[in-house]
Amino acid sequence: MTTRAFTIGLDYGTNSVRAVVVDCATGETVGTDVFDYPSGEQGILLDPRDPHLARQHPGDYLDGLRVAVGRALDAADGTPGFSRDRVIGIGVDTTGSTPMPVDARNRPLALDPRWRDELAAQAWLWKDHTAADEAAAITATAREHAPELLEPIGGTYSSEWFWSKIWHCLRVAPAVFDAAASWVELCDFVPAVLAGLDDPARIVRSVCAAGHKALYSEAWGGLPPKAFLARLDPRLAELRDRLYARAYPADRPAGRLARSWAETFGLREGIPIAMGGFDAHYGAVGAGVRLGTLVKIIGTSTCDCAIAPADGPMPRIPGICGIVNGSILPGWYGIEAGQSAVGDILRWWVDAICEGSDALHGQLSEEAARLAPGASGLVALDWNNGNRTILVDPRLTGLLVGQTLHTTRAEVYRALIEATAFGARAIVERLQEYGVPIERVVCCGGIAEKNPVFMQIYADVLGSPMHVAGSPQTPALGAALSAAVAAGSAAGGHDTFDAAQARMTRLGDRTYTPDPAAVSVYGELYGLYRELHDAFGGVPGARSDMGTFMKRLLALRDRVVSAGGAPAAAGTCGRERS
Amino acid sequence: MTTRAFTIGLDYGTNSVRAVVVDCATGETVGTDVFDYPSGEQGILLDPRDPHLARQHPGDYLDGLRVAVGRALDAADGTPGFSRDRVIGIGVDTTGSTPMPVDARNRPLALDPRWRDELAAQAWLWKDHTAADEAAAITATAREHAPELLEPIGGTYSSEWFWSKIWHCLRVAPAVFDAAASWVELCDFVPAVLAGLDDPARIVRSVCAAGHKALYSEAWGGLPPKAFLARLDPRLAELRDRLYARAYPADRPAGRLARSWAETFGLREGIPIAMGGFDAHYGAVGAGVRLGTLVKIIGTSTCDCAIAPADGPMPRIPGICGIVNGSILPGWYGIEAGQSAVGDILRWWVDAICEGSDALHGQLSEEAARLAPGASGLVALDWNNGNRTILVDPRLTGLLVGQTLHTTRAEVYRALIEATAFGARAIVERLQEYGVPIERVVCCGGIAEKNPVFMQIYADVLGSPMHVAGSPQTPALGAALSAAVAAGSAAGGHDTFDAAQARMTRLGDRTYTPDPAAVSVYGELYGLYRELHDAFGGVPGARSDMGTFMKRLLALRDRVVSAGGAPAAAGTCGRERS
Repeated sequence: MTTRAFTIGLDYGTNSVRAVVVDCATGETVGTDVFDYPSGEQGILLDPRDPHLARQHPGDYLDGLRVAVGRALDAADGTPGFSRDRVIGIGVDTTGSTPMPVDARNRPLALDPRWRDELAAQAWLWKDHTAADEAAAITATAREHAPELLEPIGGTYSSEWFWSKIWHCLRVAPAVFDAAASWVELCDFVPAVLAGLDDPARIVRSVCAAGHKALYSEAWGGLPPKAFLARLDPRLAELRDRLYARAYPADRPAGRLARSWAETFGLREGIPIAMGGFDAHYGAVGAGVRLGTLVKIIGTSTCDCAIAPADGPMPRIPGICGIVNGSILPGWYGIEAGQSAVGDILRWWVDAICEGSDALHGQLSEEAARLAPGASGLVALDWNNGNRTILVDPRLTGLLVGQTLHTTRAEVYRALIEATAFGARAIVERLQEYGVPIERVVCCGGIAEKNPVFMQIYADVLGSPMHVAGSPQTPALGAALSAAVAAGSAAGGHDTFDAAQARMTRLGDRTYTPDPAAVSVYGELYGLYRELHDAFGGVPGARSDMGTFMKRLLALRDRVVSAGGAPAAAGTCGRERS
Repeated sequence: MTTRAFTIGLDYGTNSVRAVVVDCATGETVGTDVFDYPSGEQGILLDPRDPHLARQHPGDYLDGLRVAVGRALDAADGTPGFSRDRVIGIGVDTTGSTPMPVDARNRPLALDPRWRDELAAQAWLWKDHTAADEAAAITATAREHAPELLEPIGGTYSSEWFWSKIWHCLRVAPAVFDAAASWVELCDFVPAVLAGLDDPARIVRSVCAAGHKALYSEAWGGLPPKAFLARLDPRLAELRDRLYARAYPADRPAGRLARSWAETFGLREGIPIAMGGFDAHYGAVGAGVRLGTLVKIIGTSTCDCAIAPADGPMPRIPGICGIVNGSILPGWYGIEAGQSAVGDILRWWVDAICEGSDALHGQLSEEAARLAPGASGLVALDWNNGNRTILVDPRLTGLLVGQTLHTTRAEVYRALIEATAFGARAIVERLQEYGVPIERVVCCGGIAEKNPVFMQIYADVLGSPMHVAGSPQTPALGAALSAAVAAGSAAGGHDTFDAAQARMTRLGDRTYTPDPAAVSVYGELYGLYRELHDAFGGVPGARSDMGTFMKRLLALRDRVVSAGGAPAAAGTCGRERS
């Protein structure tokens, strides 16, 4: 019997950081802890004058590191076979793009008392949208002068990404910009901290974060050319020299554990720190992504991850905004797609419109489960937060059609789930159309685990079984798995991601299987959804017949209802005043 | 000083009957009473197996007549100057089309113990939709064989109307059909009862009810030709002989008060019973309809009434389904348009979706009042119950576009009000386009009196002051006014409707005046509404650019908000899982 080995996975979310201690042979968690960020509102710094602003104090990240890892190890300590010297590596995933300014010693500016209360000196959270003007200007400039930059990102640069935020800082807080020796993504910062790197130039940057967020590509030699950045602002071109020349996939570590941290945690000095990555990508790894598998991380929004062989040319898939060599697994193109709002749309309906509590989510789910596909006569677009894939257009909004005086809140709830499922199907079809094989769908995230109605609708709309990942914490597991690969088999880890996934990941017990009758109705409804989608999405050459749309929807409803679906109430007309 | 004279107005609603005793010189009410129908649910007989069915027991009508008139007179008795022998006439309005089968002595079949429990033998309420198949067959048959019949009704015969219901009775309850000596509209039945007519052949039928509901027109010699009816069913052709040859406007009475009723009420025998009419039409009279005035009766649905000179050819206005000579005022074409759901849409939102109480209506109104036009980024279609005017299409449904994750229930509430206002504007523009002058809009009905937010939005959308009728009971007042005309000036009444309206109707104190800035924004929003309206309504040659629709709506929102309107939250995109 070999000696057991363990790795630590650290998952930095928006409101908390989670640490897990995982058995490299089984993926089993032997210790875990969650640290809630203390600063601001649920950990987020807000500006009452600007609802687009969302920042975070970097001190929270360091506190979270210390506390969560320490307590997770404490929790693991009792486990038979575990001891701290058997921890062979640490992996980190974070939300992103989350850039922050650092000083020449790689310390976050905001830890300096001079900048402590300056919002621009904090970490800029993924959901910070203050840089919308800068994003638009980057897109416009690239379209005119460097269209190749926009190709891998689907044609539009986002206010949520690296350059938009830094440029916005330069505009609104030039003193912060000037004081920053460099900028670093949170997912690169934490490994650098663990490795004790005190010079930003020595930070090992992950291609996962650099990829489309920072417009990094080997095709143009790394970050965008200085000439391009100078068109935005000459000082951005100067900054390029203080960032990085190369970014790496997870086939090499980001560093090795520094002595001070080793002493803090009672771990062995020098164990590898895996390359950092975004939560969605490591979540896909932890869910078992491989060629032919689509991993859907379904939460407030959705992230879809798949891979394609990197020995061919980079796939060019219209409307897929993140295809980066090595961003998910080394040796493969990582393909990232997603929906800007999924759980958020349901939460909007239940919380903002129905003003219900958590219990109402459950009640509406139960009622929705009793409705037959097509019986409500409703169809919706899932664009309450714009469309990320396949239209890549934030200036789109929600739409609901088919409501009568008898439409219920549960019917709308179901129609909204269906709309997100149709959006998911549009992504799957687009990937397949461009040669990305999808033979298996594995879901993770809160909704996948907690909402069977949702999952069954997805199975019926996609016409494909929906598997659920075995771990409820796939990002942390993926980070820990990456650490096991960084450590290698000689240390008790694994030599390849394939080998690591085979041992450390598994599917959950429950699979949702499509119902043929529902698949058939949803095939028709999806056609109607696509008509709306293409017409309102401005797809060139879209054909739609809006003049018969409502009648076709009613005809489908009538057919479903007379075939024994749930009864639908009648439309009426021509009434007198009552 | 002349002797004061009074008339009685009887208003038969869906759930109750109201009687008012009115001073002919001023229109002032000196006594009133409301009788709630005792049978069924809120007075309505329902069939748990068929949600389309809505009937009423005719005994309720007779009880209501006795009780409400008796108590209204009791209430009037104390008034200085009033005595029962100064009552010079009675007028009646009712909901409709409300046909009921009667026996050879003009007694409702349902009063016969043999038929008492037979649903088909009751009065068929306006909102009974059991005859949808028959309505469709009538439309199809007319389209093929007698298209002229469809012209005055806008191209589609309704399940709510006379022939659909009678034909349905013939199909599902032939014994009832066979037992009926004739069929009579409630608004003709009550005057006949008051006049003591015991032979259906002697009932004086009002053109108001006969008009488009029974396909009556002088253009084809009254009711539809027997050859046409025979195509539906030969027994309908036979029935035509037992109905009526002519129908009349309100320039002659429907009869004179029978001795027995005179004794019951302590009134003078022989005073005139005005021609019956539908509540909306007499409501328009009571609100002061005249050339250039549009009367909007705004309730669960809306009825719009206007008039045009009858000395010209009958106006042919596409999509206006009720143009009948004399249906509102004798000597004028009565023009009736309407929206299938107005208050009902708001009630649907508040009751069914928000699951709120009456208090929530008020709360949402208050919140909606604080929103700037265009600031929500929403636009809706008001078709949750189909579109009566100007598309005349029950197979249309609701639509809402522009929702984000920040959309509030109050914003949707306001968008729904706006949608109905846009629908109202489409009607006004259609009427004007075809030469019907509209210089003044007078509103009545519950919403007009109780919802100032609603009324202000209408003023801003229509770009026209919105007056409110002086009487809260315009249908009953209109019926009483008609009775005053039937009595004539010699008896203390009036010789013309003009004269009677000048004395007996007035505007209320409150007028809603358009705000120029809001009018301008709503001009743009109405353009967007019309794009959706024409595209989804299947208007031939409709031009729309759905691909830019959401962006134009957002651009309008952004302009409104940056000009100081209510703040709107941002759309977001491209986020990672949170």
